[in-house]
Amino acid sequence: MKKTASRDNAKTVVGAIDPDVLAFTVGQDPVLDRRLAEWDCYGTAAHVTMLSRMAYEPRLFSKGERAAVLRELAKIRDRARAGTFAITEEDQDCHLAIERTLTEALGDLGKRVHTGRSRNDQSATAIRLFLRDQLLAAQDEALDLAEALVKFARRNRSLPMVGRTHLQPAMPSSVATWAEAYAEELWQDGVRFLAGACESADRCPLGSAASYGVPLPIDRELESELLGFAAPVGNVLAAGNSRGKVEAEACAALAQAMVTLSRLAQDLILFSMPEFGYFSLPKEFCTGSSIMPQKYNPDVCELVRSKAAQVCGLSATANAILVGMPGGYNRDLQDTKKVVMEALDATRASLRILARLVGGLRAHPDRLRAAFADPGVFATDRALELVAGGMPWRDAYHQVRDHLEDLRGMDPDEAVAKKTHLGAPGAVAESLDWDEAAIRAERTRVHGVRGRVARALRALLP
Amino acid sequence: MKKTASRDNAKTVVGAIDPDVLAFTVGQDPVLDRRLAEWDCYGTAAHVTMLSRMAYEPRLFSKGERAAVLRELAKIRDRARAGTFAITEEDQDCHLAIERTLTEALGDLGKRVHTGRSRNDQSATAIRLFLRDQLLAAQDEALDLAEALVKFARRNRSLPMVGRTHLQPAMPSSVATWAEAYAEELWQDGVRFLAGACESADRCPLGSAASYGVPLPIDRELESELLGFAAPVGNVLAAGNSRGKVEAEACAALAQAMVTLSRLAQDLILFSMPEFGYFSLPKEFCTGSSIMPQKYNPDVCELVRSKAAQVCGLSATANAILVGMPGGYNRDLQDTKKVVMEALDATRASLRILARLVGGLRAHPDRLRAAFADPGVFATDRALELVAGGMPWRDAYHQVRDHLEDLRGMDPDEAVAKKTHLGAPGAVAESLDWDEAAIRAERTRVHGVRGRVARALRALLP
Amino acid sequence: MKKTASRDNAKTVVGAIDPDVLAFTVGQDPVLDRRLAEWDCYGTAAHVTMLSRMAYEPRLFSKGERAAVLRELAKIRDRARAGTFAITEEDQDCHLAIERTLTEALGDLGKRVHTGRSRNDQSATAIRLFLRDQLLAAQDEALDLAEALVKFARRNRSLPMVGRTHLQPAMPSSVATWAEAYAEELWQDGVRFLAGACESADRCPLGSAASYGVPLPIDRELESELLGFAAPVGNVLAAGNSRGKVEAEACAALAQAMVTLSRLAQDLILFSMPEFGYFSLPKEFCTGSSIMPQKYNPDVCELVRSKAAQVCGLSATANAILVGMPGGYNRDLQDTKKVVMEALDATRASLRILARLVGGLRAHPDRLRAAFADPGVFATDRALELVAGGMPWRDAYHQVRDHLEDLRGMDPDEAVAKKTHLGAPGAVAESLDWDEAAIRAERTRVHGVRGRVARALRALLP
Amino acid sequence: MKKTASRDNAKTVVGAIDPDVLAFTVGQDPVLDRRLAEWDCYGTAAHVTMLSRMAYEPRLFSKGERAAVLRELAKIRDRARAGTFAITEEDQDCHLAIERTLTEALGDLGKRVHTGRSRNDQSATAIRLFLRDQLLAAQDEALDLAEALVKFARRNRSLPMVGRTHLQPAMPSSVATWAEAYAEELWQDGVRFLAGACESADRCPLGSAASYGVPLPIDRELESELLGFAAPVGNVLAAGNSRGKVEAEACAALAQAMVTLSRLAQDLILFSMPEFGYFSLPKEFCTGSSIMPQKYNPDVCELVRSKAAQVCGLSATANAILVGMPGGYNRDLQDTKKVVMEALDATRASLRILARLVGGLRAHPDRLRAAFADPGVFATDRALELVAGGMPWRDAYHQVRDHLEDLRGMDPDEAVAKKTHLGAPGAVAESLDWDEAAIRAERTRVHGVRGRVARALRALLP
Repeated sequence: MKKTASRDNAKTVVGAIDPDVLAFTVGQDPVLDRRLAEWDCYGTAAHVTMLSRMAYEPRLFSKGERAAVLRELAKIRDRARAGTFAITEEDQDCHLAIERTLTEALGDLGKRVHTGRSRNDQSATAIRLFLRDQLLAAQDEALDLAEALVKFARRNRSLPMVGRTHLQPAMPSSVATWAEAYAEELWQDGVRFLAGACESADRCPLGSAASYGVPLPIDRELESELLGFAAPVGNVLAAGNSRGKVEAEACAALAQAMVTLSRLAQDLILFSMPEFGYFSLPKEFCTGSSIMPQKYNPDVCELVRSKAAQVCGLSATANAILVGMPGGYNRDLQDTKKVVMEALDATRASLRILARLVGGLRAHPDRLRAAFADPGVFATDRALELVAGGMPWRDAYHQVRDHLEDLRGMDPDEAVAKKTHLGAPGAVAESLDWDEAAIRAERTRVHGVRGRVARALRALLP
Repeated sequence: MKKTASRDNAKTVVGAIDPDVLAFTVGQDPVLDRRLAEWDCYGTAAHVTMLSRMAYEPRLFSKGERAAVLRELAKIRDRARAGTFAITEEDQDCHLAIERTLTEALGDLGKRVHTGRSRNDQSATAIRLFLRDQLLAAQDEALDLAEALVKFARRNRSLPMVGRTHLQPAMPSSVATWAEAYAEELWQDGVRFLAGACESADRCPLGSAASYGVPLPIDRELESELLGFAAPVGNVLAAGNSRGKVEAEACAALAQAMVTLSRLAQDLILFSMPEFGYFSLPKEFCTGSSIMPQKYNPDVCELVRSKAAQVCGLSATANAILVGMPGGYNRDLQDTKKVVMEALDATRASLRILARLVGGLRAHPDRLRAAFADPGVFATDRALELVAGGMPWRDAYHQVRDHLEDLRGMDPDEAVAKKTHLGAPGAVAESLDWDEAAIRAERTRVHGVRGRVARALRALLP
Repeated sequence: MKKTASRDNAKTVVGAIDPDVLAFTVGQDPVLDRRLAEWDCYGTAAHVTMLSRMAYEPRLFSKGERAAVLRELAKIRDRARAGTFAITEEDQDCHLAIERTLTEALGDLGKRVHTGRSRNDQSATAIRLFLRDQLLAAQDEALDLAEALVKFARRNRSLPMVGRTHLQPAMPSSVATWAEAYAEELWQDGVRFLAGACESADRCPLGSAASYGVPLPIDRELESELLGFAAPVGNVLAAGNSRGKVEAEACAALAQAMVTLSRLAQDLILFSMPEFGYFSLPKEFCTGSSIMPQKYNPDVCELVRSKAAQVCGLSATANAILVGMPGGYNRDLQDTKKVVMEALDATRASLRILARLVGGLRAHPDRLRAAFADPGVFATDRALELVAGGMPWRDAYHQVRDHLEDLRGMDPDEAVAKKTHLGAPGAVAESLDWDEAAIRAERTRVHGVRGRVARALRALLP
Repeated sequence: MKKTASRDNAKTVVGAIDPDVLAFTVGQDPVLDRRLAEWDCYGTAAHVTMLSRMAYEPRLFSKGERAAVLRELAKIRDRARAGTFAITEEDQDCHLAIERTLTEALGDLGKRVHTGRSRNDQSATAIRLFLRDQLLAAQDEALDLAEALVKFARRNRSLPMVGRTHLQPAMPSSVATWAEAYAEELWQDGVRFLAGACESADRCPLGSAASYGVPLPIDRELESELLGFAAPVGNVLAAGNSRGKVEAEACAALAQAMVTLSRLAQDLILFSMPEFGYFSLPKEFCTGSSIMPQKYNPDVCELVRSKAAQVCGLSATANAILVGMPGGYNRDLQDTKKVVMEALDATRASLRILARLVGGLRAHPDRLRAAFADPGVFATDRALELVAGGMPWRDAYHQVRDHLEDLRGMDPDEAVAKKTHLGAPGAVAESLDWDEAAIRAERTRVHGVRGRVARALRALLP
């Protein structure tokens, strides 16, 4: 009772709560919230700082009181980072655990930190701080993988590779074109959407209270600024309703990145089968058979494929939790936290492990060139050349088809070299220069945001 | 090296595995597998028992050897049940942990238990044993909730309740009809699909090895029988391919049950709002506000709604992992285990908590009757009576519409009592008798299967 | 106005409805409902027949009136089957189109058919009749494909095929084992769930009206019997709430079948690549390249893979529409009709086209045998034999690994022949006999239900 | 045969294709592609224009030939817009239908338009042109709805409304705050993601051919410029792989908008129930009951809720089709077209119908104010004021709780007016000004892109 007396929101209990009900409603929060505790310290620090500067008499927090609270918050943050800040089931979540800890240290002063806010905006703030941090890290990791792919492309720039449609051999292409494609996709699609989700999260809901504001002259712009947010969310109910929404947006963006990774993984699985032998995965990334020395199972790639399916499922789940939910806070929203955490973990782990795997990937020139033995793979390019030379398509077609054997033994490297327009295999060197510049520029942008955030947070709670 | 020397499958490592790769591939198995360890003991016991009886010379296990292995397995099972059987990350999963433990106790004899099987069929067997057990328990819990709803219907048999379409008041109905509907749906739809998934899981994949069988005269029927399975899976590759499939089937069935629960939860949320006040949830199932004494937040129902979205998402995820996967074991399948465990936990917890909630649910006659103040709710029934009495519809319609006020003050109890055909509010007493008999019959069936399973397992490994 | 005057339900309009609103709410019903019109004729015939026998004075329909109505319904049904029964946007759906047509022919008698029912139970009945019919057909088609696979297995009974895990060559297996696996999976998993969904649909909601029954002594058992249903749904609100649910159940079952088909399709795509060449798809099932004569794109298999993803998506959609929906009819339910129709069409088309494709599939012994050139594929089986012969695993393992070259040139047929236990490649002849018997038995069961249904419907409306 | 002789890609048939196979593979393309035909005309015009300027001898298209082709393309585009351009099943899709039509008019010149491209990049270009057009329109429509909400907020600026959490009355808020929240969410989240998806689609894949480029000096930058794209996709395989991906990104963005709409729809359904009566929907947007004059069913809102579930399902489906697909074109990608078209149609229809509905929405001051009768709704605000005034929370809490009756009769308007910080109900006038400016700015941006596109397309094919 005493513990929760100052709480105004969802999880407040009036009388004794049934232990089964407590277990059902608290769920995995005591574990999940370990990752939020650090961020709640910043949110609370910003709130107290704002209150201490609020034009209101009597002042709610004196300078000294604010300093005392921030000292304790810094300690809690450090323990949270070190993994030593415990949240009990009785605490229910990190917010109550922090309040309890503050109160143990500071008495009634600890309780007063909650003045003028609700657990709703407090949670929403911690989640957005966490999400922004994670999405920035994910963007960096996506760039790492893109960079590894570009490097792999450079290392194997002169290697031809059969290009396929419907998985059937179709036209001459190159290893560099294959690898660069995934780098560009990841950069373009993945990073675009991750960045969008990050921008969406980068707005401050603090001060919206339980979605209806408070009858106090709080300064929401200041809170936003203190936390390094790009801007506050405007409307207080919009701030409340966006709980869950930012998680769903993040999941949708992560799913897009994972779709790209799953296709890269699938190609790696296929082209490292003994029947192809184009690539070999680094041995330490495979499991094998103690008795079949040649067997290397591409477990990492298989699990990336499966994690992609899971992250897409989590994105669908996040949306499904929200669809048709009435406005304002509903307890359902507690569950979007776990969903987005799992999506983040799966995506970030996949990005990191693939960047290392691609770093150790080897291409096999003999097998790649041997795949051009069938002359059919040169047929379309040859017919195109004839047509471009003025021959009607029908004649070109007959000529190529009837003399397919003439194409046998054609040099795949020459075939690749002939395709020199923008983005084509014969122009990949220029593309790779461009890619590197693009990755560098994006890296600068991401690090710019990270720097802005880090400076603000350091200034707030050193 | 030594540890894994005898392994023939996916997770076998030949050389040193990279620690990041190990972390990525092992994932949460050391935690998740704590729940499977018990079942793997039974699977291993059945395998060793079969080998000891196999018509093969020299006999692979003597009677004494078999007894020694089973003694150790019983100890491991007991520790697994007690939560004291540890699986390290180095173990990777429960199967290797058990083999290690056996080998520590029994030396080479411990290693021999793996003769003639693969980790693929071993895992598949443990998962099916686990699933069958869980699905039987879920069926029982679904019946508990159905029973609680029937009892609630009986307690409030004489209470009228406005029936709605489009959430708008439409026609006279009753509290008992409302509650019984969910009981019947749960019984009919939920239990049907849970039972189907359970039957699907109730077949033994043991002996399929890595999906291609073994060159030994193993007796798969005997293994199936020892484990209390209804039958062995036939084709060995079908056994392998069904890994993941039984999990997906279970998730699909659990999703159907959760859809029903989510609608029940939604009705409870709506009809316990102060604007309705038809029902009040037991206080200990709600969170409140310390300052607003009348506020009871239906957190449990909200979380059931959200868990329904999640279980549906898990069902979609399980399917997505499988779609387009090539035949035979692929490492992706590791991830369906977590998916189905989460779906089971969420569904079973929801069934149990709702059964208790319904047990304490109270209906408020005054509010329920007051909702009949608007005469419109009687209009359709009245017109139907006039038509049935021979009046053309157009006349009946005009008469009712033009004299709507005449319906004001009509007795809702009488209106309900007039609908006496099968399944109608006025005949609910008979329906409830029928429901109880149906629940009892289903209970008998479920307990029959549970008994068969329990007897087999007790005989195998006392 | 006049047209809709007798309607008591959702789509009834009182005043002028806005044309944009009409377009939005009617949606694709005029097109989709062409497939339901036939079934609504049966439902209406059953309702009128029941009313004509109802113990109520004055009798609602005389024998002659009933006969007149049924004559018109038979005409409409015939036109619906022939594709010449038009539903206008003004009609909104098949139910109003049929009522309008009846009234044009029979005057007020046509309007009276709606006495004692609502559009809710009318729709629900037509949808269940349609679903049952479709699911029975789908079961038959699943059996056709299973049969085609069994025949393919028989045709290629003596052909070895490398068994794979992680897509890597692992152990000797056979073409027959490969094909039979999918037959068994389809029979076991697919048919089990399709049958379950069909049983769930096979219950009659007629007479539940708008989910709250009617104040008339209608005979719901009789209606159920006339329509050849296994039984009526009991509780009237359960009948209402199950609208959408039966569609979701059907989608979930169809998704399970499609998961199986997608894996079969994926195997066909992979193993017909030129790098494998195990199988060739019938040419008329592929698209090719006019210039690359050897190129055969497996479009049909690719589209089956994609349709599997879609049917899984439709299953998720059906569930998502229902989750959290309040009890009783809500207009959202209109949209589950399209969802299940698409899932049925995609699944049934995939079943049919694959049955024909498998009928024309050819296996290539030379390529299948050539894949055994690498001796590693025999290693595990060989080690197992040594162990079974009494050699400790460690010694067997060393011996096999150190003398791997001794296994080169081993006869794959012999290796297959050695695995003779239940379900193993060497015992596939017995399995195929068993499969054929199982398919035959299932066929008898399905045809039994179809016969029962056909007899009832013929008796009702010849 | 002749018809398809010049095709190099997926759908080319060499011999006679089986009619069932044709039906299965062509699917709904002849209908769906009616919407793409217009865009393919632009893509083809850009390709021919580029070829006519290509630095290559002999020139592939003379100026006169280009003009002749563009004249025909303009005619086809006009017919496509007018709905009179037919695509037969024999044509398979719009691309072959257009080529056939060109060839009928221009003979061999018609066939030559396909020189140096593949059906893959041709399709991908048409789809991106279509998507960009649709997503720009969707953004405009989202702004229309946001504007309608802002206007509704202005019209009802002075109306208090009970703010809720867990659907339970919680704190004083206002109608304007409620409406503005959805406007801001739609503007912020929806428009952000729609804009991101649009930018992603706004890149030109033309010239990537079958994903491997062509051995001709084609000018991809020029093609991109002619079509008003922001830039070409770089890598040719990235262009090929992004087929399906842009559709999935669009679906993900549309799903985010629909999540917001579904919550707005849910609130409208709830708060227009007779038990609340806060709002009434325009009568012409409801269906009613001819006999219950007071009944207005919120069908439009219910269907928006269901369409949200569907669009989320379509987004999941688009992802599921792509996950694990090997690189390069695969026929599965044909099916993402239908998926995104359905998602666009459902979302755009929902945006438009809700904008009109909100335009006619009425708020009921009496019912809104009556909901403040329970003094509890003022309790939290009151306690906050006491605390801010210096009273310890515990005392404030006791004082408020023990004198709850003192709050009875408090003026809700005054309570609202006291919350004046950023985004709070008492400061909504300023917020609305800000919203209008933001909507206007966004409108300018969207119209800027539309203008750029329109100018380019007009210049290309007047």
